[in-house]
Amino acid sequence: MEIEVAFGCILRELRTNAGLSQEELANQSGLHRTYISLLERGLRMPSLSTIFLLSKPLHTSPHEIVLSVSKKMSTG
Amino acid sequence: MEIEVAFGCILRELRTNAGLSQEELANQSGLHRTYISLLERGLRMPSLSTIFLLSKPLHTSPHEIVLSVSKKMSTG
Repeated sequence: MEIEVAFGCILRELRTNAGLSQEELANQSGLHRTYISLLERGLRMPSLSTIFLLSKPLHTSPHEIVLSVSKKMSTG
Repeated sequence: MEIEVAFGCILRELRTNAGLSQEELANQSGLHRTYISLLERGLRMPSLSTIFLLSKPLHTSPHEIVLSVSKKMSTG
């Protein structure tokens, strides 16, 4: 599984677990809703700063997100 | 401390600990030497894929790099 696809899966999972819509996550992270949508579909590669911005509203830490992505890539 | 500056510090630290020159790290990661130099000086924000590419030749994991960046940002 490619990195951006694994990231998209993890992002969608964390967002729904946090009970947030894409619009709510966009507002709370300062990112555009369209960009959140592209990330979730694995169509954009996030930068480290994007991961930091997303971590707070998702109630997690940047390195936990990256660890989840690594696990997702190894298990498929 | 800004994210890219903290990342640059951590990258330089990991690279020297691994006993690699910027050129050797470039060759082993598939990234350009100039880009490694820009990253180390905090002049570029790495993407998640860049962090994955760097982690292997630095004998670490992507999430460990990100955790080090978070710690660096909080301690300065």
